[in-house]
Amino acid sequence: MAGNSFGKIFSLMTFGESHGEALGGVIDGCPAGIQLDFEAIKVEMQRRKPGQSAIVTQRKEEDEVQFLSGIFEGKTTGTPIGFIIPNTNQKSQDYSDIKDTFRPSHADYVYEKKYGLRDYRGGGRSSARETASRVVAGAIAKQVISNIKITAFVSSVGEISLNKSYEEMDFSNIEKNPVRCPDLEMALEMENYIKEIKKQGDTVGGVITCVIQNVPIGLGEPVFDKLHAELGKAMLSINAVKGFEFGSGFDGSKMKGSQHNDLFNSDGTTKTNLSGGIQGGISNGMDIYFRVAFKPVATLIQKQDVLTKEGDIINLQGKGRHDPCVVPRAVPIVEAMAALVMADFYLLQNTKE
Amino acid sequence: MAGNSFGKIFSLMTFGESHGEALGGVIDGCPAGIQLDFEAIKVEMQRRKPGQSAIVTQRKEEDEVQFLSGIFEGKTTGTPIGFIIPNTNQKSQDYSDIKDTFRPSHADYVYEKKYGLRDYRGGGRSSARETASRVVAGAIAKQVISNIKITAFVSSVGEISLNKSYEEMDFSNIEKNPVRCPDLEMALEMENYIKEIKKQGDTVGGVITCVIQNVPIGLGEPVFDKLHAELGKAMLSINAVKGFEFGSGFDGSKMKGSQHNDLFNSDGTTKTNLSGGIQGGISNGMDIYFRVAFKPVATLIQKQDVLTKEGDIINLQGKGRHDPCVVPRAVPIVEAMAALVMADFYLLQNTKE
Amino acid sequence: MAGNSFGKIFSLMTFGESHGEALGGVIDGCPAGIQLDFEAIKVEMQRRKPGQSAIVTQRKEEDEVQFLSGIFEGKTTGTPIGFIIPNTNQKSQDYSDIKDTFRPSHADYVYEKKYGLRDYRGGGRSSARETASRVVAGAIAKQVISNIKITAFVSSVGEISLNKSYEEMDFSNIEKNPVRCPDLEMALEMENYIKEIKKQGDTVGGVITCVIQNVPIGLGEPVFDKLHAELGKAMLSINAVKGFEFGSGFDGSKMKGSQHNDLFNSDGTTKTNLSGGIQGGISNGMDIYFRVAFKPVATLIQKQDVLTKEGDIINLQGKGRHDPCVVPRAVPIVEAMAALVMADFYLLQNTKE
Amino acid sequence: MAGNSFGKIFSLMTFGESHGEALGGVIDGCPAGIQLDFEAIKVEMQRRKPGQSAIVTQRKEEDEVQFLSGIFEGKTTGTPIGFIIPNTNQKSQDYSDIKDTFRPSHADYVYEKKYGLRDYRGGGRSSARETASRVVAGAIAKQVISNIKITAFVSSVGEISLNKSYEEMDFSNIEKNPVRCPDLEMALEMENYIKEIKKQGDTVGGVITCVIQNVPIGLGEPVFDKLHAELGKAMLSINAVKGFEFGSGFDGSKMKGSQHNDLFNSDGTTKTNLSGGIQGGISNGMDIYFRVAFKPVATLIQKQDVLTKEGDIINLQGKGRHDPCVVPRAVPIVEAMAALVMADFYLLQNTKE
Repeated sequence: MAGNSFGKIFSLMTFGESHGEALGGVIDGCPAGIQLDFEAIKVEMQRRKPGQSAIVTQRKEEDEVQFLSGIFEGKTTGTPIGFIIPNTNQKSQDYSDIKDTFRPSHADYVYEKKYGLRDYRGGGRSSARETASRVVAGAIAKQVISNIKITAFVSSVGEISLNKSYEEMDFSNIEKNPVRCPDLEMALEMENYIKEIKKQGDTVGGVITCVIQNVPIGLGEPVFDKLHAELGKAMLSINAVKGFEFGSGFDGSKMKGSQHNDLFNSDGTTKTNLSGGIQGGISNGMDIYFRVAFKPVATLIQKQDVLTKEGDIINLQGKGRHDPCVVPRAVPIVEAMAALVMADFYLLQNTKE
Repeated sequence: MAGNSFGKIFSLMTFGESHGEALGGVIDGCPAGIQLDFEAIKVEMQRRKPGQSAIVTQRKEEDEVQFLSGIFEGKTTGTPIGFIIPNTNQKSQDYSDIKDTFRPSHADYVYEKKYGLRDYRGGGRSSARETASRVVAGAIAKQVISNIKITAFVSSVGEISLNKSYEEMDFSNIEKNPVRCPDLEMALEMENYIKEIKKQGDTVGGVITCVIQNVPIGLGEPVFDKLHAELGKAMLSINAVKGFEFGSGFDGSKMKGSQHNDLFNSDGTTKTNLSGGIQGGISNGMDIYFRVAFKPVATLIQKQDVLTKEGDIINLQGKGRHDPCVVPRAVPIVEAMAALVMADFYLLQNTKE
Repeated sequence: MAGNSFGKIFSLMTFGESHGEALGGVIDGCPAGIQLDFEAIKVEMQRRKPGQSAIVTQRKEEDEVQFLSGIFEGKTTGTPIGFIIPNTNQKSQDYSDIKDTFRPSHADYVYEKKYGLRDYRGGGRSSARETASRVVAGAIAKQVISNIKITAFVSSVGEISLNKSYEEMDFSNIEKNPVRCPDLEMALEMENYIKEIKKQGDTVGGVITCVIQNVPIGLGEPVFDKLHAELGKAMLSINAVKGFEFGSGFDGSKMKGSQHNDLFNSDGTTKTNLSGGIQGGISNGMDIYFRVAFKPVATLIQKQDVLTKEGDIINLQGKGRHDPCVVPRAVPIVEAMAALVMADFYLLQNTKE
Repeated sequence: MAGNSFGKIFSLMTFGESHGEALGGVIDGCPAGIQLDFEAIKVEMQRRKPGQSAIVTQRKEEDEVQFLSGIFEGKTTGTPIGFIIPNTNQKSQDYSDIKDTFRPSHADYVYEKKYGLRDYRGGGRSSARETASRVVAGAIAKQVISNIKITAFVSSVGEISLNKSYEEMDFSNIEKNPVRCPDLEMALEMENYIKEIKKQGDTVGGVITCVIQNVPIGLGEPVFDKLHAELGKAMLSINAVKGFEFGSGFDGSKMKGSQHNDLFNSDGTTKTNLSGGIQGGISNGMDIYFRVAFKPVATLIQKQDVLTKEGDIINLQGKGRHDPCVVPRAVPIVEAMAALVMADFYLLQNTKE
């Protein structure tokens, strides 16, 4: 209700601030009897983790997950899975100078206004560190819907954009480069650009494409909880996201119906897939694909005007260890949120039979 | 739960098929004591209504709302507001030929697969006729949050795009032309284009921009129910929508942080507003603005290949009275959904004080 | 959220005041493909209807249900089932004298205080007339879980109490007498007592027992949504209910564990059933049974002190056509609410497989 | 959704098994800016804790709460409050003999059947140990609604029943005796009876009465989420509860309307309070009071027939350290659940203004 839970059947509630004792979450509604692959969970956490390459933040966070409940002898029991990720690397002293200031395009100001106070250390609750809990839950959700294949990758960094269809890509390249772009040539270009941006103490935005394959027909609950509407909400709830489009997306708005309609094959599949695997809010069995736009990280290692609590504008030197470009580390987060949505609808759909 | 309700505090559940007895809805959580302006509700319904101009469908639907409960002597009583919109113009006979066929890029096929049967008349539940109920509820929501001003308009039709900021527009022009574009010159160009498309028996997509002004600081419930995430879900739940972006949107992903950050004025407002009035999922008091992409309507007045239940592909002549371009009539729907989201968060926020 | 919906998977939202245009409801989440037995729905409505015998109110209410959506060619389509029950017999003039007064033990006063105004005609939203919508939905829910048998009956009226187990009863007697008590001798005694009470212009309370048989093992969602907790909430939401107990109930609190424990048979059934078919919030396959206490109707055909809006106490003669004892007509309501709970958990349980 | 969360505005999700790593919970929707009284939380935990007197279980559980988030410099921040209670005293070896057996009137059998497997150690999720998390959240809820006074006490143990109104009681006596009965003479009688029962290796049930005072008028959300319906659900969700009645309760069902109606005073209070402070599901400002029936604990220190997984009935000697009577320790749990309900409706009500 108060906004920190997601999903109906397979639901996740998260808690935790960037510099509190621990982050964590509770998964309620995970089916019983699933032999969890803890290594797979670890892999997802590693993909999101800071410090994994030269183009992401060099903060050290162990991000070790401790499962507290809902698992017995390695299997899910159907009861809530509680987990925590201790904050082992809180350097609270680093943040004393932002205590009384509001940084531009951060959530400092609105949290202070909404709640009357805030945990200012490292952004508190508004820090993207919270997404670690989502990755844990998403990694479990993936195991619940193991037949459905979810793959995200970076399709643009700043102006550098991968102008090819996902179908032309070799997904096995994604984890072979620090940018997580499946086109290795473009990946290198993006990587160099991010390094340059980093040198400037600046940041840059980007786009992540996500493809969901092998989806059963029938997932989604119109008229409000359409499959793409929930995917959209899930993506827009990720820090720094500014836009979501699926299938033909914004480009589709420029087209004529005679170009846009996906004609059927006799087996119910379609010759084209501008619909993006979803019709009327319900999966049609074709690949679902969508794009998620991320703004540039607001924290700069430059001098910037900030607002003080007293209403003064002062010029402050940004510091710390932040990501010059958020999209490489956001790839597993996009996949995690997609997995949560798909698991939820998948489990719900089974009630209809 | 099953997807036909929206909102938590101010919630709407809708029901009804295109050619059933009636459409309708129930609003639960409307505050008591609001003297309803029924004329204003009627005006919104007129804006959505078919047949209002030469560029929209010529179907005749009266769309007269009957309120059944929750209102006493003209005022809301705090109890659920039930309403119906009788379907007076059902021409069921028109649809007999689609009974056993699945039209491309319609929801026919997925409804049949998901539910095992479907009301095929006029698209049944998947018809955009359902949005009439949303417009009723949205018109009431607007009265709940009467200080907040919500304005939507058509910003592109096909390739014809209004390449100016909403701030340069004169909103009083919107209702002065059938396209609902505030730039009268562009409006005429769009209108002519739609007429041409119509003549071809084709359809075209478009984009609607929505601006929400005079928003109190603090609306939105992170980390999942961020204000823009709910707005995004609301918009994506509208028929034919393929994309949503707010503030800088997809263009923001191409920018650097040093360009994108909105610097503060000393009163907490910002010099620029690339954030689109929302930081960290919470309104910051600046204008909220977003863009919604609509695909071209799938029904063509042309010959098209359709799939039969038996798995045959047959060529069928489309007929009927459909919109060549959906965006002019979708303007009040976008506003209605925005009003539902804003009313919900507005009422919820009051719990925190 | 605002309290007028019930259930998660199979959910019902109701609307309507006693003397408004119509009552009604929307059922969302009803599985598709159920061939509805409309006659069975009518039968349930007849059981709840006023005027059916000499011991219930003589008001005339047709209580004819009109289904508006969600049903096609007699079958549920999986989309929301909207229905209305027009109020054909509103005699608003009868209620003018209660416009400015608050009757004792009615909801007049609290509605006025909570909402600032109220539809005073016939109790408005607080009237038990609202339960007509529940009976419609319950009748459909029964068809969703047609294997599960739900039987309610009157087990006491005032001090006259049926002191036998439900297992000794012949359920086929229930509908053979106006009290709906399966023991025909006791039924006659109760009937005569109610007639006497009626002559006095007084009212009397009573108890309804409900038995749910042929329940699959495993329904219920601990730790909060235990099966009996939802049944209890469902019953307590019915007008005039003051108490709920299941299995051994309040008497169980007097017992020792060595007396109370239900020993197993080797097939997993139990030799006794003091547990009432539910362990730890989950059905165990044995009969579920519970008792629901109803207070006497507050409307008397006697002189009574009432409070005026101005804060005066005045002595007013009660009038109208009210039930001297609510339990005979509440039997189908108890069954309906039980059916809603069971259908909801039944459909939810199927998600776990 | 899956049953482990409670409340809409002030919501609690709990997790944890009796013998897992830790229990815990997440509170979402706690208003910001509350200076938490941690000592008061500790006091509530002490009241629930095992080993506090000779008549309760002698298990040693530290029940130390660790808050992980949502609190900054001692104040709530409006973000989720995550907390854990480590399980420091798991003696898993004690439970090896119940691994393959189902104890009578325990949840062993239904958990195994529902989920296909179970954490059998100490009852796993079905253990009343879970209520520790509720007491933490309830202690915080009490601080949110500090003007509302919630007092529970033991009103009967087995056949020994306190046959006086709560108004005749001196609540300051409650914590002066291990039974938590405000009548010290009766308390001693109950205490001696429990000791005798304990000597027999048997257990006994009891009743807890709860009184809620200083309640604002207007809390509760008819027609389904009536205040007493939610209180009833809350109580019925507590382990071992078999019944709930408020105000006149089951006795009220025996009365005539002329006896039962609560006549008004001119200030809107009532001369009597058989209604129990709630009319039509909405608080009327009078004291709310209700009774909760607890069955005897199912674990006996006696020989008992149990069912094995293989379908054999074997006679097993019960052992361990269990409560001979659960009601003394359940008093703070009843108060905690009442506090959760009241806080939720209190915060929700503020949305209506």
